[in-house]
Amino acid sequence: MSDRTYRVTEIVGTSGESLDHAIRNGIRRASETLRHLDWFEVTEIRGHIDQGEIAHYQVGMKVGFRLEDA
Amino acid sequence: MSDRTYRVTEIVGTSGESLDHAIRNGIRRASETLRHLDWFEVTEIRGHIDQGEIAHYQVGMKVGFRLEDA
Amino acid sequence: MSDRTYRVTEIVGTSGESLDHAIRNGIRRASETLRHLDWFEVTEIRGHIDQGEIAHYQVGMKVGFRLEDA
Amino acid sequence: MSDRTYRVTEIVGTSGESLDHAIRNGIRRASETLRHLDWFEVTEIRGHIDQGEIAHYQVGMKVGFRLEDA
Amino acid sequence: MSDRTYRVTEIVGTSGESLDHAIRNGIRRASETLRHLDWFEVTEIRGHIDQGEIAHYQVGMKVGFRLEDA
Amino acid sequence: MSDRTYRVTEIVGTSGESLDHAIRNGIRRASETLRHLDWFEVTEIRGHIDQGEIAHYQVGMKVGFRLEDA
Amino acid sequence: MSDRTYRVTEIVGTSGESLDHAIRNGIRRASETLRHLDWFEVTEIRGHIDQGEIAHYQVGMKVGFRLEDA
Amino acid sequence: MSDRTYRVTEIVGTSGESLDHAIRNGIRRASETLRHLDWFEVTEIRGHIDQGEIAHYQVGMKVGFRLEDA
Amino acid sequence: MSDRTYRVTEIVGTSGESLDHAIRNGIRRASETLRHLDWFEVTEIRGHIDQGEIAHYQVGMKVGFRLEDA
Amino acid sequence: MSDRTYRVTEIVGTSGESLDHAIRNGIRRASETLRHLDWFEVTEIRGHIDQGEIAHYQVGMKVGFRLEDA
Amino acid sequence: MSDRTYRVTEIVGTSGESLDHAIRNGIRRASETLRHLDWFEVTEIRGHIDQGEIAHYQVGMKVGFRLEDA
Amino acid sequence: MSDRTYRVTEIVGTSGESLDHAIRNGIRRASETLRHLDWFEVTEIRGHIDQGEIAHYQVGMKVGFRLEDA
Repeated sequence: MSDRTYRVTEIVGTSGESLDHAIRNGIRRASETLRHLDWFEVTEIRGHIDQGEIAHYQVGMKVGFRLEDA
Repeated sequence: MSDRTYRVTEIVGTSGESLDHAIRNGIRRASETLRHLDWFEVTEIRGHIDQGEIAHYQVGMKVGFRLEDA
Repeated sequence: MSDRTYRVTEIVGTSGESLDHAIRNGIRRASETLRHLDWFEVTEIRGHIDQGEIAHYQVGMKVGFRLEDA
Repeated sequence: MSDRTYRVTEIVGTSGESLDHAIRNGIRRASETLRHLDWFEVTEIRGHIDQGEIAHYQVGMKVGFRLEDA
Repeated sequence: MSDRTYRVTEIVGTSGESLDHAIRNGIRRASETLRHLDWFEVTEIRGHIDQGEIAHYQVGMKVGFRLEDA
Repeated sequence: MSDRTYRVTEIVGTSGESLDHAIRNGIRRASETLRHLDWFEVTEIRGHIDQGEIAHYQVGMKVGFRLEDA
Repeated sequence: MSDRTYRVTEIVGTSGESLDHAIRNGIRRASETLRHLDWFEVTEIRGHIDQGEIAHYQVGMKVGFRLEDA
Repeated sequence: MSDRTYRVTEIVGTSGESLDHAIRNGIRRASETLRHLDWFEVTEIRGHIDQGEIAHYQVGMKVGFRLEDA
Repeated sequence: MSDRTYRVTEIVGTSGESLDHAIRNGIRRASETLRHLDWFEVTEIRGHIDQGEIAHYQVGMKVGFRLEDA
Repeated sequence: MSDRTYRVTEIVGTSGESLDHAIRNGIRRASETLRHLDWFEVTEIRGHIDQGEIAHYQVGMKVGFRLEDA
Repeated sequence: MSDRTYRVTEIVGTSGESLDHAIRNGIRRASETLRHLDWFEVTEIRGHIDQGEIAHYQVGMKVGFRLEDA
Repeated sequence: MSDRTYRVTEIVGTSGESLDHAIRNGIRRASETLRHLDWFEVTEIRGHIDQGEIAHYQVGMKVGFRLEDA
């Protein structure tokens, strides 16, 4: 049977620079250990503040990837 | 009676570059066919991943516009 | 008793430029009147549209800060 | 095949007087351009404040109507 | 043991006149069969439309009442 | 600029037979008037009951379709 | 006063066969003790797994019925 | 047919002592009038404050129980 | 820098008369101590019941106001 | 200590045929690599449309399984 | 006019010991600077983990208090 | 690049004694197989009832841990 199954895992990417960097950093790191990454969905945007400035962004994401046939 | 009514429609803007571009692309395209666009609200941030990099961002938005008197 | 308590307040930062600027603007302004700002969490991304272009972004955020011992 | 299909669209009705007027205004305006309006559901109650008084109510609603056979 | 327990039940009050009437109608009817009604909370505001006018409002509510000692 | 924009509209498909039929009925009817239908997402599963049996299923869905270049 | 009031109760229907059977089973059983059942709304779809196969579906539903005049 | 149906009812347990007591108190009281209680799920944790101390906890819960064959 | 920042605070307005009065009462009281009130958003509609009648409505609202330059 | 701990993972099952097949396909594939699968919960029902017909259903599910003692 | 207005503020209480202590700590600290605290509602239960043990609980709460007549 | 990435996994801790024990049991078991556990967040509080008493608590939690550089 050829119907694909996907797994969804949750990560938090971080960056001191911007939202976009936090998203990209998280996906790059995830792709080093997970194969067939297919989509992401942002679930949370947070960050730490230090001395009145954003120290780093933390972007929660679900990442989906195709499971290979077992 | 002069109380305005608005309609809200949902779009998905996309971009290979950044979140901000996906938002701007969607609103520009919507404004080509809808008049009196007044506000937007982001409802979903997703995207496709290809070879461990973000292929494109997909930003779901509600867009509100004033209905002209019928 | 040394267990800290935090207060969470809600702000809306705005910018004509980008999402990131709206977040940074809001946090900078809040840090002028609130001490010990510690974290933020984005709750809403909206904006106004004028002539088919984004006039300004409005980013709702919760901001948390440590209460000093009373 | 006789199974009906409905479309749901989102509007915002406004009024300077009351919640009920905002709902009625929105539905009356929608019924001028949409046929077979069947039900509504309130999704959001907001408003603008001017000089410490409510300037107008804004009531977000989903409105459903039956699609005629194509 | 004197700690009270409450039960919460869900009703839908209706009215052809207004939101407030729909709420009051529902609570009056519920109080005819349930004793010790203590609070309500609106969970849903809907209604039926007929000929472009609101035929009746339907307001979903949770209603809480104290259980007597068994 | 080649970044696609999508529109999302909401429909309710119905069927006296099953959930799957209600979904399929709604999408078939929508595809008669909307081109380039691309995806759907179920938002609500309801139905009417008559004499203790399900008279018909009502499945709320968002349906997305690509906007052609303006 | 002729404005109807409805009560909403929550049930979980189960079936070893399919989603549709779980919904129908729950509604049939509810209709044996509740009169005037009028609508249902699915709130949750769960199930138990045994040996890698679905042992039974559990479908949470709200069921609404008209209260008779007291 | 042997597929079970469950009913879910909502209660609020209270206690002047702790969260756990409020949960246990509510379930004990409910079990005096409902047979076959099978599971609970906390939906809300609230409480009243008097003179700067918690006067009592109020824990909202859904409680599920099996319906006997009719 | 001329990008405005807003603060959002949460209030509960009450009235023995109607929903609209509860909203207006809350906003009037808030405007006595907060300047530049700009918008409100209803988050919760509750109330107390006494002897089968609504003793008072309690309407939770978020109220937004512009922060002056620090 | 004999108190069990469970892990919950998220999958997406797909099928060209029906909702039920998509659920069953996902659980069968998951059970090939995860032992002690105990329950599932549907979190999302989506699908792709091709030429006005459903090309495949995509059902998001949480799947829970017991962790063996470490 | 004697209709009361309440304000709701959000705090995070912490404790190294238990959930109940985190709630109590937060409310005690809040009552040192806010008068007429009347109720609380838990919105979030989180915590930090250090070396496989809970270092401290963080319980987010809304706290409501009556505004005195202005 | 030194921006950390975290993974979030979901567990259910159980205990026959109390909420706090269920949380602690789940985190201890998770820390036996996952390194660098950093935070948790409670997502669900449920339990089984037997003979009118709580047989065991089941506390759903998200647990976050830092990914080591790949």
